[in-house]
Amino acid sequence: MASLKDVAKLASVSLMTVSRAINNPEKLNKETFTRVKQAIEQLNYVPDLSARKIRGDSSGPRAIGVLALETAMTPFSVELLQAIEKTAQKYGWNTFIVNLFDDKQPDHAINTLLSYRPDGIIYTTMGLRKVELPEKLLGKNLVLANCISDSEQLACYIPDDYLGQYQAMQQVINKGYKKPLCIFLSEKTLAGKTRRKAAEQAWIDAGRKVNELISYHTSSSPDNLAQEYMMTTQILKQHCAKKLDFDVLICGNDRIAFVAYQFLLGKGYHIPNDVAVLGYDNMVGTGELFYPPLTTVQLPHYEIGEQAALHIINSKNKKEINYVASPYLPRKSL
Amino acid sequence: MASLKDVAKLASVSLMTVSRAINNPEKLNKETFTRVKQAIEQLNYVPDLSARKIRGDSSGPRAIGVLALETAMTPFSVELLQAIEKTAQKYGWNTFIVNLFDDKQPDHAINTLLSYRPDGIIYTTMGLRKVELPEKLLGKNLVLANCISDSEQLACYIPDDYLGQYQAMQQVINKGYKKPLCIFLSEKTLAGKTRRKAAEQAWIDAGRKVNELISYHTSSSPDNLAQEYMMTTQILKQHCAKKLDFDVLICGNDRIAFVAYQFLLGKGYHIPNDVAVLGYDNMVGTGELFYPPLTTVQLPHYEIGEQAALHIINSKNKKEINYVASPYLPRKSL
Repeated sequence: MASLKDVAKLASVSLMTVSRAINNPEKLNKETFTRVKQAIEQLNYVPDLSARKIRGDSSGPRAIGVLALETAMTPFSVELLQAIEKTAQKYGWNTFIVNLFDDKQPDHAINTLLSYRPDGIIYTTMGLRKVELPEKLLGKNLVLANCISDSEQLACYIPDDYLGQYQAMQQVINKGYKKPLCIFLSEKTLAGKTRRKAAEQAWIDAGRKVNELISYHTSSSPDNLAQEYMMTTQILKQHCAKKLDFDVLICGNDRIAFVAYQFLLGKGYHIPNDVAVLGYDNMVGTGELFYPPLTTVQLPHYEIGEQAALHIINSKNKKEINYVASPYLPRKSL
Repeated sequence: MASLKDVAKLASVSLMTVSRAINNPEKLNKETFTRVKQAIEQLNYVPDLSARKIRGDSSGPRAIGVLALETAMTPFSVELLQAIEKTAQKYGWNTFIVNLFDDKQPDHAINTLLSYRPDGIIYTTMGLRKVELPEKLLGKNLVLANCISDSEQLACYIPDDYLGQYQAMQQVINKGYKKPLCIFLSEKTLAGKTRRKAAEQAWIDAGRKVNELISYHTSSSPDNLAQEYMMTTQILKQHCAKKLDFDVLICGNDRIAFVAYQFLLGKGYHIPNDVAVLGYDNMVGTGELFYPPLTTVQLPHYEIGEQAALHIINSKNKKEINYVASPYLPRKSL
């Protein structure tokens, strides 16, 4: 790979002149600048950002390092990474991603991340959760995206799950449904707990009784998706043994809705005429493929990524939890 | 962030001694090494890999830079990134990912990638395709994963789509299906062309006539997934107006199967008794959620990532296209 030295040699100038041409072109006369520029192009020279930072030269592009706990390996929050990258690009920042496979042995990934000397770090997780922050990240210019932490006061950007589910449940009520069957996510997850609380509160606030809601939680088994979601068919079997004893199915996420669709359609039920279905997440890559189209709640992954990136780019100081709106997304199933 | 200098100061040793403690601890006496180690731990010092490389010191961990064209933003080949990361980790290498949103303006992403001075580069794409290699990558230690290129002779790792579809079609034939309806991916994609050719050849090799296959291609509209895949329902409507005129549906991928399932189940057809369905991809995150479970072909994304990483780690020299097996994955729908 061509070095600064190679460029200097080809352009017959000093190292300092090459450095100036890159960082302060206005300090050079036009002829010298052009000569250096041609040498850079001819050699395909790429400045070494880290080297420049070590020399205390901060005029080059700055970088956001993303520590992605499971994020880059799942279909769900990929929009979040996309948003960070696009936002950074818009402001002339660089981005790189380092994956973390589990939060038990984060050392290797964190050392990799820090060794590239990012100007800011975004720690992001696949599903909303509380994370234990590794000690090495404390005190760094750190923003949490899609997660929260007890470790220290930090800026966090997370979906407003409570309001998202509350508003969606209000729509269920306004449309006149009387007998919801709810299959929430695992009680062990923040989303499972928060969304259930919101659905129940909306129901109570509409003057109904909470025990009118038939509620289940899926089990949490990330290693066996099929097992986790196939509980849905077991629950549905119980509730349509003779005839359906519910008029709307509130799903913990779109994957539960996916399993439920197949079950209900296979039993000859028409969605939404015989039974309505409400999803959650608007899952990337499949959210648009339901037939009939699934009414769901849009997880604001794009906005979370964008705001986390802007937090770093604009050097915001406020260290607080920011709830990002999760809008109701009406389609045809409710 | 603590610097090498800070460590040296705290341990009361020279910079050279700190450097030795990191890179050649056997050259130090035990007492000195312990003192430096304690200073490193106390200050949470992380070596700057790039800085070390600039100084010509290559004893630290080496890094694979991943240039991911759309990959980290889709549910499909996330396993590929996971495999690269895990393989690198196993061999003590680092990995970082830089996203590329489209291949028309790759400069920013490529400059970011190169500025971190990776020891090897993996260029990977979401769906199998032919890429135009940016000039800056030519001559670099580069491996293509899930893509090929005309630009120069390179090591490529891609799925064996032909054999995957051929073998799956043999299963269809062996199980006695006579009237396949095929909805292949767009003719503009490598997968659309190759898989059609393979399915037809398997049919012909079994002594059948190619015009017995009713074949369609979806349109290619990456910006509008719903439109691309909802063609499936239009095609199916035509072929089950009165009764089904096919006994097995060959789907270009699992997303087509996803739409088809809902349509067929909604019409009261039982899978596989009334009509069988064959998918392709075993799509991450949903492949396991079909009800009944979908028989499909496993895209070898994990193996592709693993082999591409090993290619760099083991300094393999062979520059050729490597076809990675895509095994038939029998479940219940065929």
